[in-house]
Order: sequence, then structure tokens, then C-alpha cells
Amino acid sequence: MKRPGSTVRRAVEQVSVGGDGAARRTRRDLLAAEEPLEIRIVRAEDARGTSLDEAAIRVSVTMRTPAADFELAAGFLYGEGLIGGGDAIASIRYCTSGEQQYNIVHVVLAPGADFDPASLKRNFYQTSSCGVCGKASIEAVMGAACDRVASGLVVSPETIVALPDRLRAAQAVFERTGGLHAAGLFTAGGEPVRVREDVGRHNAMDKLIGASLLAGELPWSERIVMVSGRLSFELVQKAARAGAAVLAGVSAPSSLAVELAESAGVTLCGFVRGGRFNIYAGGERIAASAGVSG
Amino acid sequence: MKRPGSTVRRAVEQVSVGGDGAARRTRRDLLAAEEPLEIRIVRAEDARGTSLDEAAIRVSVTMRTPAADFELAAGFLYGEGLIGGGDAIASIRYCTSGEQQYNIVHVVLAPGADFDPASLKRNFYQTSSCGVCGKASIEAVMGAACDRVASGLVVSPETIVALPDRLRAAQAVFERTGGLHAAGLFTAGGEPVRVREDVGRHNAMDKLIGASLLAGELPWSERIVMVSGRLSFELVQKAARAGAAVLAGVSAPSSLAVELAESAGVTLCGFVRGGRFNIYAGGERIAASAGVSG
Repeated sequence: MKRPGSTVRRAVEQVSVGGDGAARRTRRDLLAAEEPLEIRIVRAEDARGTSLDEAAIRVSVTMRTPAADFELAAGFLYGEGLIGGGDAIASIRYCTSGEQQYNIVHVVLAPGADFDPASLKRNFYQTSSCGVCGKASIEAVMGAACDRVASGLVVSPETIVALPDRLRAAQAVFERTGGLHAAGLFTAGGEPVRVREDVGRHNAMDKLIGASLLAGELPWSERIVMVSGRLSFELVQKAARAGAAVLAGVSAPSSLAVELAESAGVTLCGFVRGGRFNIYAGGERIAASAGVSG
Repeated sequence: MKRPGSTVRRAVEQVSVGGDGAARRTRRDLLAAEEPLEIRIVRAEDARGTSLDEAAIRVSVTMRTPAADFELAAGFLYGEGLIGGGDAIASIRYCTSGEQQYNIVHVVLAPGADFDPASLKRNFYQTSSCGVCGKASIEAVMGAACDRVASGLVVSPETIVALPDRLRAAQAVFERTGGLHAAGLFTAGGEPVRVREDVGRHNAMDKLIGASLLAGELPWSERIVMVSGRLSFELVQKAARAGAAVLAGVSAPSSLAVELAESAGVTLCGFVRGGRFNIYAGGERIAASAGVSG
């Protein structure tokens, strides 16, 4: 099987409506690729003397843009609390054959890694990167409490308002397709660390968390995370799990996103655009400025 | 328990960065509400002589904006193929007590309605309104084939380019919060039939489908559906299941969305903005114009 790319080229008909009717022409266009990714866990003790396929426990299928698949799998498992850290992972591999070879990822756990398959069934058997999706009950969704983020970070307002342009500048695939969400990790001074893109907003965050997890760079207590879209409950949940000090987005947060940010100790900034933004939670991490205040 | 509304009022700090530093002031802001909704099915035969709670089968939890919850539940069950039509539903009710009373919906099936709880476990036990989320395997996600949309509808390009403004005009909650996705149903001439909003793009579509299902107005073979965001695989899947002739969106489709639209016979228009749009599939339903062509 050919490994899928992040973009797909296709013919489209472009229609322009003007004063003298509609003009229609065919041209080649670049689309963001979307493919299913099945995430599977293999426990070290189950893998002995058998194939990965036979030893695998199916965890989730998510629709994602191919790229950074191992990071997506690692970030998803960590964000959902299914693994406790990067040292729980021995290796990550694609399936070795078949039609969906590159759409199936096996996360092989380290010997002795703490993982209870029953917790999958109990709380979110066959869930997805949406985080909330597939949970067995409201309690399972809301009860995923995490430690309060511990961080003395203080960020300047000037740093926050500069983030959208910096995120956009790093969005390689969006630039070509106009169709992707992004999550970017920045230093306290606003310098980009890395950016991940995906058709799904939660996948982009999972990829970003997974990259840091695999690089041994969690928690994000000295980091700012910036996302391209709306700030949902699930994004705050994932950011809090990664210990993020500041989560910012170009669009609106939901009511529950704000509530969770407050209780988890995450500074939440929304509507970051045009030199302005709103602080919804954790305002003590945004520096006062020499300018007008009150 | 108080019934949750679609918006929540909160204090936010507004920060403006200018030449002389940052100004910061506190004001009241309106946020789009986000709450979990648990969808449960109750079979007629299980409901005899017991409470709904005891007879209920948990199907899904989704994060949604409270409003049109019964439509959301009905549309979700139909879109996922768990019920065959509106006549499978005897009644829909909130839970009668408890903390989460208005976040739990019981869909009581009609006597003899075709529903197999084993199919839940097999294919997407505890799934979500994301459609794909929680599916047991890639096959379950991709194999949800539906009949090819049968429709002789032809729509003018002028009608398509007018849709974004008409959708936005009908978005009551977005107007106040800036934080919601929308899905709108329009006649072939572009007149709005109804619009539904939600923090989740798939929920907005489920609400729209559910409203039509409960009103006995499916399939949408003479209708245009317009969504506020990106055109994902899952949105095309839901639209196809509702028999939509034309699906349009203000943003980009994914590769798989285009593939599915082609195979399901749904006309797919993307990047509908500023008097222009792209046709990705089913161009025969977009009328030629008096203007330039080729």
C-alpha cells in the first residue's frame, strides 16, 4: 500500500458569479487529505510469541490528515489518561500489511507499563480523538479531573497578539489547501517551538502533545499553546492534561471551556485578533502593561 | 435542576494592545453554552413495568449547545443508521430527575421498531455525534454505505453564492457569541427553511436532520444544505444519509469528503464566499449561466 500524503490533488470547477452571469472553469486544486486512523495498544506481555495484529487492543478510530501519526497516537493515549507518560511506550509502528497499512498504528507498551484494558471498556471503549466522544457516560466525560496546572509564567499582551500571524506563518499545509486546523507550541516570549496541522482540531492538539511527550518535553508549564479555531471543553481538557500554562485561540471559547480552564488553572485567551484579545481565566499570567489599565 | 440555556453570561477581561502599551478592562460577555448530552434508547418492550432509566440503553455522549436536544438525538440516531425513520420513534423525553436531568435524553422506540442493541456493541458502541468517533474499526467507519442520492434538482450559481449571507442572517446565537457552527436547510431557490446552531459542526447537522425527520420532511432531494465551516467526510456522510441533493460550505472540503460526495451522488460546493465557489462533485446540479462558460 502506498503511504498517504497530507494533500491530494484533484480537478475542481471554479464558478464566479458576476454582473453578466456565471463563469465556470476547471482547474487543479490541492485538498487537505482526510483518512481514518485506527489506534491500537499492544501490551508487552501480550506481544510475546505472537504477531502485533493478534495481540492488539483496538482503542479508537479518528479521521485525520496523514502525517505525524505516531505523535497523534501517543498524544491521544496520553491526553485520555490511558498511559501515564512517554516511558510507557516501547515503540510505535504502522501495520505491516494490508489495504489500511498506514491507517493503523500499534503503540507497543513498555514491559510493566501501567495499562488496564478494562478501563477502556468501562470509560471510553472505542473512543476517538474528540476526547469526549464515545465516553460511556456523562460522569466519564466530566470526571476526568487532572492536577491543577502549576506555573509561575507571566506573558506580555504583546506576545499574545503576535501569535496568530506566527501560527499562520508556520501552517505549511493550510497555506496550500485552506482546509486545516492548527495547534502551535510557543515559548513564553512567543517564539514558535512547533506547529501541527490536521483536518480535526482535536487531532492537531493530540499531535502537538504527542510530539512533546515523545521528546520528553512535558509538562508545558513554561509554554503557550495557540490554536486556529474555537476553544472547546475538550481542547482545554487536553491542554490541562499537558500542563499548559496558557491556551489561546483566534475564536470564542464555550462556557464549559472557561469553567474547566478556571478549575484546572489554565490561562485562557480567546478572540486573539487585530491587536486585541479576551482573557477568560487565569488573568494573573498576562502581564500588566505600561499603558492604560483598569 | 434548572434547564440550561444556549448562552452563558460571564465577566471577561478585554485587552487591547496599542502604541502606548496594553489597555485592560473588565466587561460582561456572552458565551455559547457547551454541556454534555447523553443519548439513550429505550425499546418499547423493555419499558413495560419499569422506569425509563432502568430500561435505557446508553448510546452516546456528545458535547453540545443546549437547544433542539430532541432533534439532535433523533438526527444522530437516524444519521448513524440506528433507526430507519421517524416512525421508529414513539416519544423523546428528558430524564425526570437528577443533576444532569436536562443533559440526558431518552428516545423511546415505537413497538416493533427495528433496533438491534448488538449492532451498537459491534459497530459503534458508545459513539458520538462525530459520526466516526467511537467506531470499532475502519471498516465500520468507511462501510456505512448509503443509497445514492436520487434527485433531478438544478440550482443556479446565483443561489449558491447568496447562501452564506442568508445562513449568517439566521444565526441568532452566533450573532451574540461569535462561537457557533451552523447548518441551514434551503429551498432550491435559496429560501431558508430552518437553521440550527451548535458548538459542534456535526451536532448542528444532526439537529437539522432530526428536525426534518421529526417533521416528516426527509429526504432532502429538493433541498440545499449550507454549513458554516469545513466540509468533512462525516458531514457528507450525514448529508448523504438525509438524501441531500446539494451540500455547500464556506470553507474547504477534505479529500475523503469529495470522494464520498462523488460516490454518494451529493453535489459538493466549497469555499462559497465573495461571489465565488468551487464545485467538487456533482456539477450537473449547478445550472449553466448566461455568462461566460468553459
